[in-house]
Amino acid sequence: MTKDDCIFCKIGDREIPAEFLYRDDFVFAIRDIKPEAPVHILIIPFAHIVDLSSEPTERLHALGSLFSASTTLAKQLNVTESGYRLVVNQGPDSGQWVPHLHMHLLAGRPLSAIG
Amino acid sequence: MTKDDCIFCKIGDREIPAEFLYRDDFVFAIRDIKPEAPVHILIIPFAHIVDLSSEPTERLHALGSLFSASTTLAKQLNVTESGYRLVVNQGPDSGQWVPHLHMHLLAGRPLSAIG
Repeated sequence: MTKDDCIFCKIGDREIPAEFLYRDDFVFAIRDIKPEAPVHILIIPFAHIVDLSSEPTERLHALGSLFSASTTLAKQLNVTESGYRLVVNQGPDSGQWVPHLHMHLLAGRPLSAIG
Repeated sequence: MTKDDCIFCKIGDREIPAEFLYRDDFVFAIRDIKPEAPVHILIIPFAHIVDLSSEPTERLHALGSLFSASTTLAKQLNVTESGYRLVVNQGPDSGQWVPHLHMHLLAGRPLSAIG
């Protein structure tokens, strides 16, 4: 899938409408359309990053902004105290659906096993 | 739990022995002692970070190094192609056990639901 076919790129570019729960210069956040928990948000870099392993180290370091976005969202959604899980799936065994890097934020009930 | 009682701080300080599968100036990686998948690694900052939400933004941005460590480990463990999952649990609902920030790297079989 190229950038031109990528649904997350289209949402980031506002070609496909979706409510942004958060945005900064680097990432945006939307609700997962198939939520697996009462709170299920996707935090997505605007850049079309397909595979962590093929990114240069400095771009990986820039992904720390996923964590700052997640803490802002956790506060906004009032789940900081109750707790939340951050998940990045990469490749076939992980269950990754969209080949554009994204971090899941799950919360709102006691979560089960991590894998 | 203070830093003095923290098992991950003791492992990072080499007070408790454990095999480091990876280390750089910021993080180290060890095998999970209760693995939930054939590959189950913990990537742990040396700094005693308890709660993402109470960290200043610049420290959160520095956590991008968790991703660079994870890609190095994925290559080392030969799971880049088969895929892997990265998980950070925060607070009661997440199932977090040790209150010192850590990222799980899971791989080696098709993983189940994320939460």
